[in-house]
Amino acid sequence: MNERPIIAVDAMGGDFGPSVVVPGAIEAARLHDLHVQLVGDTPKLEAELAKIDLANVHFDIVQADDVVHMNEKPSDILRRKKNASIQVACRLVKEGAADGVVSAGHSGATVACGMFIMGRLPGVERPALAALLPTEKNPVVVLDAGANVDCRPYHLFQFGLMGDAFARDLLSYAAPRVSLLSIGEEEGKGNCQVKEAYELLKMAQNINFIGNAEGRDIFTGDIDVVICDGFVGNVVVKMSEGLAASLIRMLKRVFTSGLLPALGGMLAKGAFKHFARTIDYAEYGGAPLLGLHGLAIVCHGRSSARAMSNAIKMSGTFVRKGTNDRLAETILANEELTRFSRAI
Amino acid sequence: MNERPIIAVDAMGGDFGPSVVVPGAIEAARLHDLHVQLVGDTPKLEAELAKIDLANVHFDIVQADDVVHMNEKPSDILRRKKNASIQVACRLVKEGAADGVVSAGHSGATVACGMFIMGRLPGVERPALAALLPTEKNPVVVLDAGANVDCRPYHLFQFGLMGDAFARDLLSYAAPRVSLLSIGEEEGKGNCQVKEAYELLKMAQNINFIGNAEGRDIFTGDIDVVICDGFVGNVVVKMSEGLAASLIRMLKRVFTSGLLPALGGMLAKGAFKHFARTIDYAEYGGAPLLGLHGLAIVCHGRSSARAMSNAIKMSGTFVRKGTNDRLAETILANEELTRFSRAI
Repeated sequence: MNERPIIAVDAMGGDFGPSVVVPGAIEAARLHDLHVQLVGDTPKLEAELAKIDLANVHFDIVQADDVVHMNEKPSDILRRKKNASIQVACRLVKEGAADGVVSAGHSGATVACGMFIMGRLPGVERPALAALLPTEKNPVVVLDAGANVDCRPYHLFQFGLMGDAFARDLLSYAAPRVSLLSIGEEEGKGNCQVKEAYELLKMAQNINFIGNAEGRDIFTGDIDVVICDGFVGNVVVKMSEGLAASLIRMLKRVFTSGLLPALGGMLAKGAFKHFARTIDYAEYGGAPLLGLHGLAIVCHGRSSARAMSNAIKMSGTFVRKGTNDRLAETILANEELTRFSRAI
Repeated sequence: MNERPIIAVDAMGGDFGPSVVVPGAIEAARLHDLHVQLVGDTPKLEAELAKIDLANVHFDIVQADDVVHMNEKPSDILRRKKNASIQVACRLVKEGAADGVVSAGHSGATVACGMFIMGRLPGVERPALAALLPTEKNPVVVLDAGANVDCRPYHLFQFGLMGDAFARDLLSYAAPRVSLLSIGEEEGKGNCQVKEAYELLKMAQNINFIGNAEGRDIFTGDIDVVICDGFVGNVVVKMSEGLAASLIRMLKRVFTSGLLPALGGMLAKGAFKHFARTIDYAEYGGAPLLGLHGLAIVCHGRSSARAMSNAIKMSGTFVRKGTNDRLAETILANEELTRFSRAI
């Protein structure tokens, strides 16, 4: 680890590119005492930097000649676009010049470059995307949120171990309540994959496995880590965004359905804003890909400067707390169980 | 089909038993010109019937000596509880004495008894639970909602065919937009199961397959039928219930966070009630198990009399429209594709 965490930021990524990523990155560097490496097209980055106050900010620019487009396949990007900003950023970590990567670009490319350029921690079978979702109480970690669509039981098992390490360090939960997403609370409920993963989790060292959770339990705040395969996790994360957005649009219609509701809406406006902020994904920044040498954080394409700043802050905390050490330890402590399950 | 649809109602099922089921069933019979068979413990049913007006209602009582408990296994219930109300109700359909079954009891038992007592329509591989969810526009059908947790691609394929028939007849959608739940809109996104199902659906006869949908698309109202395996579908349905409930509790806190918001909430109360009704599952009654000889509708354990009445109404419409004929036709028209996929 470098004395001041160094975060390589894919400055060309995201729907708004450098105009949003650069100010977000500079803000994060200033507020959280980090060094950011802005990776991308130097003239474009300099143009954005010229607009902001850079006093006391640790940063540099790393030139990358290419960008990736949203319609490209991750495997093609990995093979052919050696100079794309996300590849250059991941190589900085690989070479020890940076501790982590943050990108709001093509999420498949970030996952692929993270896995294949940065590489996995010893013993980790499959790195997993950890999404943070708002609940009635504290945020919940859902993993895998989409990096692995076809999983074996021991993959789910390791997701639980990694989610535990993440929740302890990044969310400061003392003994995170880890649960397995299924279709019933009782042991023995679920599909083949989940039933086997349950058996492994029951025997796991060092984690607080509380059993199965159902879809309705995710948002109560009574669970800290929810384990599922990347297909289910992706549906869960996108559905929670979509359903919240739909309900808010429906509520807006409530408040424009007549004079009294409109007046009511005006009176409650301040409180509403607070509520909207609670359920805003930008508060959490992005989804870290756990299990890598280093860390890659995948941000929403529509990320604001604040969301980028929060994601970079998260990666700084991850590095400072040495979360990868904790993660590797837990993986190692459960290596035999994993190997046993792989063998059958 | 009997001249007036005959619906066997598991009068002992549900958290509130006969006290809710009996008035719901009698209301449905009166409002929708149906004949209901109340299956259960005669003295208990008579006690409930004594409380309500029975003029011009077509009904009778069918004695069942036993009930099922929520902690029993569906397979045990099927084998050992021959006189449980749900088994007696399903046998009425099997013997031609009734056209459909409605139960708010043990949902696993209803699914098992429906499948094994009533039996499948010719060509149907796996009956599927179809859940109706509220959206910003019209309701969407999600299937399978939990009857089949481990699925093959041709199962998903048939879920699409059955969902189409249901949406045409029961929701009066002219050419239902059928989509496959996945992790990206583009063809080629998804896990192995979904990618293969996509190929089949693309070639399907008589349905309007519009491609993949993502979690965020379910509630916009721009999709009419969402196909997924029973594990994913169960998570989706329970999560939508849970998230909506959590958001409403969070909103309540908004309106009790101060004097102005409280006043605002009072002014908007009427409009809010309308909103709450829009997203209330009781409007839809229950989830039909499609693909059976006859029909079984699984209702929520907490169903109100109104929810029961709506579910019984739905089964009456299903019978009157001859939805099973349409369903069997579509299954037959796509038999070769199904067989082809089974063989590989």
